[in-house]
Amino acid sequence: MAAAAASSSPPAAITCRAAVAWGPGQPLVMEEVEVAPPGPMEIRVKVVSTSVCRSDVTAWQSKAQPDLFPRVFGHEASGVVESVGEGVTEFQVGDHVLTVFIGECKSCKHCVSGKSNMCQKLGLERKGVMHSDQKTRFSAKGKPVYHYCAVSSFSEYTVVHSGCAVKVGLTVPMDRVCLLSCGVSAGLGAVWNVANVSKGSSVAIFGLGTVGLSVAQGAKLRGASKIIGVDTNSEKQEKGKSFGVTDFINPDELTEPVQQVIKRITDGGVDYSFECVGDTGVVSTALQSCSDGWGVTVTLGVPKTKPEVSAHYAFLLSGRTLKGSLFGGWRPKSDLPSLVDKYADKEIQVDGLVTHDIPFSEINKALELMLENKCLRCVIHMPQ
Amino acid sequence: MAAAAASSSPPAAITCRAAVAWGPGQPLVMEEVEVAPPGPMEIRVKVVSTSVCRSDVTAWQSKAQPDLFPRVFGHEASGVVESVGEGVTEFQVGDHVLTVFIGECKSCKHCVSGKSNMCQKLGLERKGVMHSDQKTRFSAKGKPVYHYCAVSSFSEYTVVHSGCAVKVGLTVPMDRVCLLSCGVSAGLGAVWNVANVSKGSSVAIFGLGTVGLSVAQGAKLRGASKIIGVDTNSEKQEKGKSFGVTDFINPDELTEPVQQVIKRITDGGVDYSFECVGDTGVVSTALQSCSDGWGVTVTLGVPKTKPEVSAHYAFLLSGRTLKGSLFGGWRPKSDLPSLVDKYADKEIQVDGLVTHDIPFSEINKALELMLENKCLRCVIHMPQ
Repeated sequence: MAAAAASSSPPAAITCRAAVAWGPGQPLVMEEVEVAPPGPMEIRVKVVSTSVCRSDVTAWQSKAQPDLFPRVFGHEASGVVESVGEGVTEFQVGDHVLTVFIGECKSCKHCVSGKSNMCQKLGLERKGVMHSDQKTRFSAKGKPVYHYCAVSSFSEYTVVHSGCAVKVGLTVPMDRVCLLSCGVSAGLGAVWNVANVSKGSSVAIFGLGTVGLSVAQGAKLRGASKIIGVDTNSEKQEKGKSFGVTDFINPDELTEPVQQVIKRITDGGVDYSFECVGDTGVVSTALQSCSDGWGVTVTLGVPKTKPEVSAHYAFLLSGRTLKGSLFGGWRPKSDLPSLVDKYADKEIQVDGLVTHDIPFSEINKALELMLENKCLRCVIHMPQ
Repeated sequence: MAAAAASSSPPAAITCRAAVAWGPGQPLVMEEVEVAPPGPMEIRVKVVSTSVCRSDVTAWQSKAQPDLFPRVFGHEASGVVESVGEGVTEFQVGDHVLTVFIGECKSCKHCVSGKSNMCQKLGLERKGVMHSDQKTRFSAKGKPVYHYCAVSSFSEYTVVHSGCAVKVGLTVPMDRVCLLSCGVSAGLGAVWNVANVSKGSSVAIFGLGTVGLSVAQGAKLRGASKIIGVDTNSEKQEKGKSFGVTDFINPDELTEPVQQVIKRITDGGVDYSFECVGDTGVVSTALQSCSDGWGVTVTLGVPKTKPEVSAHYAFLLSGRTLKGSLFGGWRPKSDLPSLVDKYADKEIQVDGLVTHDIPFSEINKALELMLENKCLRCVIHMPQ
């Protein structure tokens, strides 16, 4: 399928297939692309599995950056190191890796602070290019093809900065561990790092997708005694239960605001609430659902429309906290290996979040399922 | 001036003078009022000093609750217990006390939690009456006169719940310690309890009134290395310096947004920012002024207009925290005595915040000075 570079000489460009988006919301097209050799401190990865996250779909549909097409989306992925660029000592050809959409340089002010994952060198990339030289590593028909979050895993091969990949053991299932690349980790981290949920506490989760269910799992593992799942799709109730949800509410079936119901069944509001829908209006509802005095609301979702979070000041003055995080506050290189270990040791559940296994050639089906809310995670299997 | 009750028989009503507001924003009128005896678990206090807080003025001007006039405002006060109601064992006639605008019953879910000052029994009173029976203890010309925050200290005598008063030593200066009743404590608590400012950190304070200067003092005592004071009145610069401000910015004198300047001089934003103006737009500016990854913004002010706090979701997702508190998170009865001790031991500065000493008969002058931003705290001296 792909013309691999000779192993003895410096890596050459690779020609392979990628699912290219030619415009916002346009179905992905399998194209022959050229993937440049990895630059200094970069690695080229043969993608094995890539799952589809809601933010891939949101970015694919967005008309905000029309100049960044054609583009290769995808950021939750596992793969094998195919070649390494100049200066890379951390990885060797053949290593199994997870890609990460925010990197860790370990030398900037944020990385050395020990309390931030907002790396100043390898932070969230929004311009469709590589951090190091502001250029792309993909081209099709002689023209640049833009990246997404400096990962672009909807391609048989991709180039990432070595600070945006994490080594995983050779025995860890590649087609499942890719979910730790974003969604599952984001949910667990929001509970463990950001909210720091305590034993015996009460939790409300708005939106029971992959992130919300991972929040439920994290809360259960912390010993929360009441885990309220809120979703407009009642089919999520059963799945929720298997991830720790103790009480399910479908707000569409209520005759009163959901926050009122939550406050009643928890005697004043939950200790922690999580917004996992990607709707700034729901952030306000989540804030109102938690308790005066100590309630903490964590916002995880990327809103599809209205980007302004709004809340009456009285909800803050009465002692609530509103906070957010990317990737659950995890520092990818420092912290992700321990999560992979937990998965390998069966301490955390990942497999149950995969609802569909789909061959790369049918990737558009995964985008459709996500748009129709008919899946949790679809794993795309690359030809090997 | 007042007809005191006989000490041997149950306390009777007292006739005394109070500064009564007959309508929103109307100058206070010295009226002869009748102050009922304290009910069960209440105490009647002979007010000695009462300082004027911005929220007295905001509530006095507000047209939101026209039915709550005539009304007696005032909530930052010191006084002497004149009589005690049935069941009161904590206070005796002659005790010196501070009034507090949120009480502590020590038995509700919030009081026993140890992490909240949102007492469910004696929380912020908004209906102009006493917590216990939803009635007033004041009347003038035979008609009820409403309370403010269940304190109403713009009167020679007032009745408060025993859970809304704190005993202070007989040697503590009554005409200064009253500032601990609200403003100074709110500022110190926001730094120590809510933000938990750490040594060597950077801080931005929006609004250098009594609350903002107390935030500066709190930050200085915690060892913050950079304390940026932001105020549209450049006359605040000198006073700010004496309370710990290291850098002063007047946003009206800038050609770029103040958050941009703050981010530049702090290499990315402050660790902590505090909104002490009472403007929800400034809350958003304060959030933008603090650092990705760990920045914390505390909102302290009660907004005069637009009550909705609004912020772009990206400021939260990138790791910021927005929180608020009433009374700096202090539990009034449990925590205020230690602050009074710090004042008595000269560990905290209060006196420098008093810009005017004004006799009770001229109380309207204090409201005018506050409206014209020409004072920090005016202390009203009651006739003794």
